[in-house]
Amino acid sequence: MIILSGGTGTPKLIDGLRQLLPDEEMTVIVNTGEDIWSSEVFISPDIDTVLYLFAGILDKNKWWSITGDTYNTYNQMKELGRFEILMLGDRDRAVNLVRTDMLKKGLTLTEATAEISESFGIRAGIIPMSDDVVTSMIETPGGQMHFQEFWVTHKGMPDVLSFEYRGIGEARLSPAAKEALEKDDCVIIGPSNPMTSIGPILALPEIKEILKTKKVIAVSPIIGKEAVSGPAGKLMAAKGLDVSSKGVAELYKDFIDIFVYDIRDGVLNPEEIEKMGIKAVALDTMMTDEEKRMNLAKEILMLFR
Amino acid sequence: MIILSGGTGTPKLIDGLRQLLPDEEMTVIVNTGEDIWSSEVFISPDIDTVLYLFAGILDKNKWWSITGDTYNTYNQMKELGRFEILMLGDRDRAVNLVRTDMLKKGLTLTEATAEISESFGIRAGIIPMSDDVVTSMIETPGGQMHFQEFWVTHKGMPDVLSFEYRGIGEARLSPAAKEALEKDDCVIIGPSNPMTSIGPILALPEIKEILKTKKVIAVSPIIGKEAVSGPAGKLMAAKGLDVSSKGVAELYKDFIDIFVYDIRDGVLNPEEIEKMGIKAVALDTMMTDEEKRMNLAKEILMLFR
Repeated sequence: MIILSGGTGTPKLIDGLRQLLPDEEMTVIVNTGEDIWSSEVFISPDIDTVLYLFAGILDKNKWWSITGDTYNTYNQMKELGRFEILMLGDRDRAVNLVRTDMLKKGLTLTEATAEISESFGIRAGIIPMSDDVVTSMIETPGGQMHFQEFWVTHKGMPDVLSFEYRGIGEARLSPAAKEALEKDDCVIIGPSNPMTSIGPILALPEIKEILKTKKVIAVSPIIGKEAVSGPAGKLMAAKGLDVSSKGVAELYKDFIDIFVYDIRDGVLNPEEIEKMGIKAVALDTMMTDEEKRMNLAKEILMLFR
Repeated sequence: MIILSGGTGTPKLIDGLRQLLPDEEMTVIVNTGEDIWSSEVFISPDIDTVLYLFAGILDKNKWWSITGDTYNTYNQMKELGRFEILMLGDRDRAVNLVRTDMLKKGLTLTEATAEISESFGIRAGIIPMSDDVVTSMIETPGGQMHFQEFWVTHKGMPDVLSFEYRGIGEARLSPAAKEALEKDDCVIIGPSNPMTSIGPILALPEIKEILKTKKVIAVSPIIGKEAVSGPAGKLMAAKGLDVSSKGVAELYKDFIDIFVYDIRDGVLNPEEIEKMGIKAVALDTMMTDEEKRMNLAKEILMLFR
């Protein structure tokens, strides 16, 4: 099973899948468009979330960071008048320091991620979408800024005029991701932001063509006219897209087989999805507890049969 | 009052001086020969000890690091198979991150130290000996290594064939240190390792000539044939020096007025010091508690009268 992941929505679904599948049967291809250098380390937030999830140390209240982590370095820096763009826990910082050291020694992000995975005893595959730097840059009335600056520093408040995946022109799909895709026919596109979490992965060359040859199930992160969480709505609107599950389906229509939307969605007309040649399935996608995460995962696995 | 400092001996004496003098009357010129890049940050251990002492947060059990600091990043890195050369606490790491950020922005080490001092509300002057990089390198049978590698990683065990202050040829005394020395006539050379703590300061151009014009009191870090702490003995022997207070006095003889040695010293013949034109004074230099630190400081202040 291949899962395209980013943000916090897809990790919740992976958490459900883990109750049903052995970790070694899952390969997660992870967005790196939100990666950022901060405090001398290279932070890959979406990779870390997946790492911590499989390592069994993810903080499942926030769906990022290590559970029980302390913030002593962060707080001391704040006392000295320095504000880190990302609130990095002390153990989290260690992981990022180890990664940075590996990258500086010449390892690719794929290799570094594999090595850190191994140190954590993780048996799932965790593969960055690319070893090249791709950065989601948001154009606001106050100027262009890194996604993290928009989302964390400015709390997603500025108007979004447009955005781009800087570096995407020169970026290639990670060879390990390509290899994993060659070996597996089932792909889940998780309920993550289609603009900044899934978008960068899909913007890489080859990936859409590869997905066309697979059985692909996508889960919508939008219910009605609202994103379940995060800035997906604002960013979709900036691209002139309909902020709705239909809008998401349109983004994915060329390469998905099944589109899962929420049973609460009062806006989507499934016939419009079927008209695109895609099977539409209404499920409970609000994964608010362990059981609901497993149930959604179970339904999705059944759809592959 | 100017104090030349490094290691842990002189900070103890400064701790005593603080019970007698307002902080703003002290300027500490600090060894930077043990500075090192580790885990992406520029660590200046001798400066940090003095910073934490004046900030009131120094761990006075170890005489380095912040009292009550945690080691969560360090320990997590260790769990991932990475051993940091220096055991950096989480709050300590924050200070080093802030310094590194300042240096990367183009501040000198003197400027960065002043800014960090100010953030801590410190009123004493803390000045690195130089803004240029000087590194104590130890030649061992196993090859040349940074002082920290010799002392921390190898616990000071390897034989010392020789050592050098790499970069000393191009290094200049920090202009702020020079300015402070111009304004003050009293200098204490603390009981720190004369090779790796005081040695690099004295190896800078100009400093010895300046000290000749001052009233200088040096405190020996050696009692009998043994250093009170640290690798001073081994390093002095490597330079062919007598491991004794007399050996220390010989290093300082051209520019000190008074030489303080320990009352327990059964080896030193004070007449040999007097013969160098230096007044020899026996005091209790074992600063094992607050009161003893203050007493030694008081005696030294009286010697300046």
